[in-house]
Amino acid sequence: MSGTLYGLGIGPGDPDLITLKALKIMQAAPVIAYPAPEGGESLARSIMAPHLKGDQVEIVIETPMVPGRFPANAVYDKYADEIATHLKDGRDVAVLCEGDPFFYGSFMYLYGRLSTDFKTVVVPGVSSTTACAAALGMPIASRYDVLTILPGPLPSEELLKRLQHCDAAIIIKVGRHLSKIVDVLGTLGLTENAHYIEHASMENQKILPLEEAQFAKAPYFSMILVHKRGEAWK
Amino acid sequence: MSGTLYGLGIGPGDPDLITLKALKIMQAAPVIAYPAPEGGESLARSIMAPHLKGDQVEIVIETPMVPGRFPANAVYDKYADEIATHLKDGRDVAVLCEGDPFFYGSFMYLYGRLSTDFKTVVVPGVSSTTACAAALGMPIASRYDVLTILPGPLPSEELLKRLQHCDAAIIIKVGRHLSKIVDVLGTLGLTENAHYIEHASMENQKILPLEEAQFAKAPYFSMILVHKRGEAWK
Repeated sequence: MSGTLYGLGIGPGDPDLITLKALKIMQAAPVIAYPAPEGGESLARSIMAPHLKGDQVEIVIETPMVPGRFPANAVYDKYADEIATHLKDGRDVAVLCEGDPFFYGSFMYLYGRLSTDFKTVVVPGVSSTTACAAALGMPIASRYDVLTILPGPLPSEELLKRLQHCDAAIIIKVGRHLSKIVDVLGTLGLTENAHYIEHASMENQKILPLEEAQFAKAPYFSMILVHKRGEAWK
Repeated sequence: MSGTLYGLGIGPGDPDLITLKALKIMQAAPVIAYPAPEGGESLARSIMAPHLKGDQVEIVIETPMVPGRFPANAVYDKYADEIATHLKDGRDVAVLCEGDPFFYGSFMYLYGRLSTDFKTVVVPGVSSTTACAAALGMPIASRYDVLTILPGPLPSEELLKRLQHCDAAIIIKVGRHLSKIVDVLGTLGLTENAHYIEHASMENQKILPLEEAQFAKAPYFSMILVHKRGEAWK
């Protein structure tokens, strides 16, 4: 009997924002796996540290982090092979995914390689988008609002066009694109409706009105939330 | 000392998809509140039943459900007053919110009425959108995808326009708008890329390729997910 592959959403950063379901599966799995930048610390592993005893096999999915480039297929091929070895031997493997596994997450590349051959279960998690809204005290969208999720690295003209076609937006992966995004929102007259947040739900969480977020570069895990009515309940 | 108002995301339906954080707060609160259709059963209460001992004060936020109409302000005024009475007396009140409190949720109307006068904490929850993706085995979006959340009650021409400006979409609140949405997706040649799901993560969960979802009316808690590349990891 082969093992089961689990993609576990572990939530946005607060260790208590994991679900009961993901926690039980994670603690019962003989093997856990999690992404880490090449040579660096794994955020997913550090978030889950309070819930782990350290007696499991751990696979570090080391991923080269080059701004503006996505990891090569060979990276996921290699780790899919390593995970498959455990699954074939009957050991369940739980992959820890920041936020939700299927919401802009790298787990999908393992899923695409392994789910046809092995039983795979995906456990959804709290997305950092709603964690940002909660931390800001800013409802994201209501009633018949059209809400768009926009990756910050998109070109200005793309951002501008998409922002014109929605009622509310969450701009993700802000990072080094902050000043470009600030300009776009200014052009649309939306600066006062926008809020900047980094590391939502974590100890180093930072919240600012967009007009005060005037630094050259933001961390990768930062977002901007904007609602055209200012407050979604209006 | 006044009590604290909590907006707790309880997740999409599986009782184990609540977070540790929301569970602890819910079980410790002397008063819980949850929405229910007028004269009907509360979905939020029934989802959380396995975690409740029944020894708390319970406020049923009874909401008239008229298709195409939103509850009147007077409904929220009344329940905000009732909740405020407990808060003034020093009792914490935990409001149970299906999915996430700030993602198209009615909690924001209580938040708008109470958060300036009382300490308020919002705990994000697993959204039914990512629960649908997990159940379908269908990643929602990747890399620089633009993802749009579209309420199904919008007119056809609005849906059509917004769908043209994104890479992936989640159409929520499908209900009696199913056939209209099927037509719009057909016009755009996206039928094969779309999947229908109702009651994600619950015992009565149902999943169909959109072309097989040919019934006159879907339940309110149904969604359609569509990705223009078919699979987000491609």
